[in-house]
Amino acid sequence: MSKTVETDKPLRVGIAGLGTVGAGVLKILAGQADLLAARGGRPIVVTGISARNKEQDRGIDLSPYPWFDDCLELASSPNVDVVMELIGGEEGVAKTLVELALENGKHVVTANKALLAHHGVALATLAENKGVSLAYEAAVAGGIPIIKGLREGLSANRIDRMVAILNGTCNFVLSLMEDEGMSFDAAVKQAQDVGFAEADPTTDIGGFDAAHKLAILASIAFGTRVNFDAVDIQGIESITAEDIEAAKELGYRIKLIAAAQKQNGGCLQRVQPALVPLAHPLALVSGGGNAVHLEGDWVGAVEFGGPGAGEGPTASAVVADTVDIARGLDVPVFGLPTDQLTADNAAQQDTSLTAFYLRFQMADKKGTIAAVTGLLAEHDISIETMIQRPERDHVAGANMPVIVITYPSTREALAGAINAIEETGIVASRPHVIRVESL
Amino acid sequence: MSKTVETDKPLRVGIAGLGTVGAGVLKILAGQADLLAARGGRPIVVTGISARNKEQDRGIDLSPYPWFDDCLELASSPNVDVVMELIGGEEGVAKTLVELALENGKHVVTANKALLAHHGVALATLAENKGVSLAYEAAVAGGIPIIKGLREGLSANRIDRMVAILNGTCNFVLSLMEDEGMSFDAAVKQAQDVGFAEADPTTDIGGFDAAHKLAILASIAFGTRVNFDAVDIQGIESITAEDIEAAKELGYRIKLIAAAQKQNGGCLQRVQPALVPLAHPLALVSGGGNAVHLEGDWVGAVEFGGPGAGEGPTASAVVADTVDIARGLDVPVFGLPTDQLTADNAAQQDTSLTAFYLRFQMADKKGTIAAVTGLLAEHDISIETMIQRPERDHVAGANMPVIVITYPSTREALAGAINAIEETGIVASRPHVIRVESL
Repeated sequence: MSKTVETDKPLRVGIAGLGTVGAGVLKILAGQADLLAARGGRPIVVTGISARNKEQDRGIDLSPYPWFDDCLELASSPNVDVVMELIGGEEGVAKTLVELALENGKHVVTANKALLAHHGVALATLAENKGVSLAYEAAVAGGIPIIKGLREGLSANRIDRMVAILNGTCNFVLSLMEDEGMSFDAAVKQAQDVGFAEADPTTDIGGFDAAHKLAILASIAFGTRVNFDAVDIQGIESITAEDIEAAKELGYRIKLIAAAQKQNGGCLQRVQPALVPLAHPLALVSGGGNAVHLEGDWVGAVEFGGPGAGEGPTASAVVADTVDIARGLDVPVFGLPTDQLTADNAAQQDTSLTAFYLRFQMADKKGTIAAVTGLLAEHDISIETMIQRPERDHVAGANMPVIVITYPSTREALAGAINAIEETGIVASRPHVIRVESL
Repeated sequence: MSKTVETDKPLRVGIAGLGTVGAGVLKILAGQADLLAARGGRPIVVTGISARNKEQDRGIDLSPYPWFDDCLELASSPNVDVVMELIGGEEGVAKTLVELALENGKHVVTANKALLAHHGVALATLAENKGVSLAYEAAVAGGIPIIKGLREGLSANRIDRMVAILNGTCNFVLSLMEDEGMSFDAAVKQAQDVGFAEADPTTDIGGFDAAHKLAILASIAFGTRVNFDAVDIQGIESITAEDIEAAKELGYRIKLIAAAQKQNGGCLQRVQPALVPLAHPLALVSGGGNAVHLEGDWVGAVEFGGPGAGEGPTASAVVADTVDIARGLDVPVFGLPTDQLTADNAAQQDTSLTAFYLRFQMADKKGTIAAVTGLLAEHDISIETMIQRPERDHVAGANMPVIVITYPSTREALAGAINAIEETGIVASRPHVIRVESL
């Protein structure tokens, strides 16, 4: 097969969705028009825009751009080569628009991680059959060019593992809790007040957004079909200011980690809070930042970091995808033709050896520490570090926090120990367990 | 213009140079052949190899590959689509080979930063005229896909500034000095012993290698013609164990920094040791690592980090470039057609405001500190931090080190102050000045 790429005419873009990202894209396309034309080899022109509300003030003059009341008409317009889907949502009009555009042989650029996590392979197959691009750099890690870095820059490697911070809202909340000593609830409230969290923050805080992104990255990394349902998802709701403080004292910072690795011939995908060593670059990611640590068989460990969301970063990624299309670049959506993506043989169980952080509330009674440490030992859990110290307002006889970092063990062994400890009744509540990420 | 890309036949590669990188490339191409064929859309086959010494044991079986005694014949072989130039050197056979290959309409993949820093624009023009790729991901920052990340991933942005660690040897030496308290000479010796520094380490230690890489990155970032001669180059020879220790105490780590920024309508390129705040990811780069911090007008700050050299990382980048060629991807060599690259209007003078680290050896006499601080004030240099402390084996009346971190000032103002201080004769030698990088 040889392919012919038209690169002589202006590239005509139709934008559906004029929220923060859509508005940002319009600003970049207007503000850097000459630069983008030089880089892309031809002008990139906006030949259609569409949004729910035409009258809303977006701080930009929309009059130069043809308005489409129905965004789906962008997908059939003879004046549109590229449809930008910046509406969002895994179903509904976003999905219909992308399908229609691809079916009509138009390139699609989207920032929609939920759509790709749920329908990525079907859409990629459609794009492939039609010989057009389905580009989504903005869907993962905002302005960081991680899709390109992984899918093209590291194409010589088998990826063994990735460990990433993919949700800026969670990172912002955890940073607030650490920097200001805030409670989880207060930090979420503040994140909402400054526009960093939605009114219903579940998608972010519960880890689902990070899981969407992880499923996409894992597909590229391992050559597997996107499998969002296989992601083991845990949010940050259970993290307390005490955990954050204790972690710091022990040389760690708590982050919502999205990780994937090969294991027992399958692929393990998980989103969960974890302790990250302070000396690792992932620990330095603050506020709304994102970062991805990748391990390839030839390259070793590579890190990408930057802003994970927001108008400028996300629009930067959308426009970069568009310049790629102007340049005539086309790469298989998930790095391989879809018929060569293997089933994601989801690992049934996490059998890796991992260190854990444990926080107990223990009765302030003689022998309780000995009982707990004895039960840990019986279950082959060795203690690396332990802090037992009464809180400042400790009253004799009240419960006392004890923090333990274990040596690596399996989750199964740990669960056995925890159950045994709970059964003794010497702990006031189920111990709080957080993974210690080995990096 | 429309372009037609042949992507149906195997991509045939001729490799010139079988040192560490060349051998690594052969290993990857053999070991991941199926994966690379799937990712690239067609098999990548080695149809020719060449090196100075055929008999040398490289730990790989060379018998499957046609041997060329004269590497230049790879450039005219009808069985070669891509010539890999892994010989090195800015002139001589490497240059001749690349020119010949391009002239004959063959794609070129190279890891040769010196060649590109000195002849990049001429070679890029030749590649453009012939409609072939000149790919060089491996030439900058080893396994980190920084060329791709900058040239394609951040194509929506005007880059304002970059601050990078681009020489693994210097970073290894500085890490040794910090971790082991070694002198500069001892650390260089050890770097040589473990193969991290050449017998003549000048190219690395003197900052020239980092400058080659910086000149290439600056061209892509700013859309300017590569201008190696404009790089202000200073190596790490003057850094002492005392500097490293004092910097650490003040919250910094000393790194060989390669930086470029727009200034007064021109472009400022510099390689020099600098203090980096410990809380910044660049400070975490240890051993032979590299990292690049980029600031774009829309994306904000983005960081890339990873291994800066070595068989696996460098070969990973060379093979990724080859997969790009197999995929039919082609991007202007420096991000713009060469006739649109502007002259690098080199900034005549660094007028930016910068904090500085100063180390004085002062006579242990009454009034010396007052005299020095007075002269700094007279030249509008304000002191942010000062440490004066006798060394452990201090003898009364001997010289005493004084360390100062200034508030930001111009280089010119600082030079005036330093000259005035020297003239007083109260310092034992010219004060040691190191830039504090603002990050």
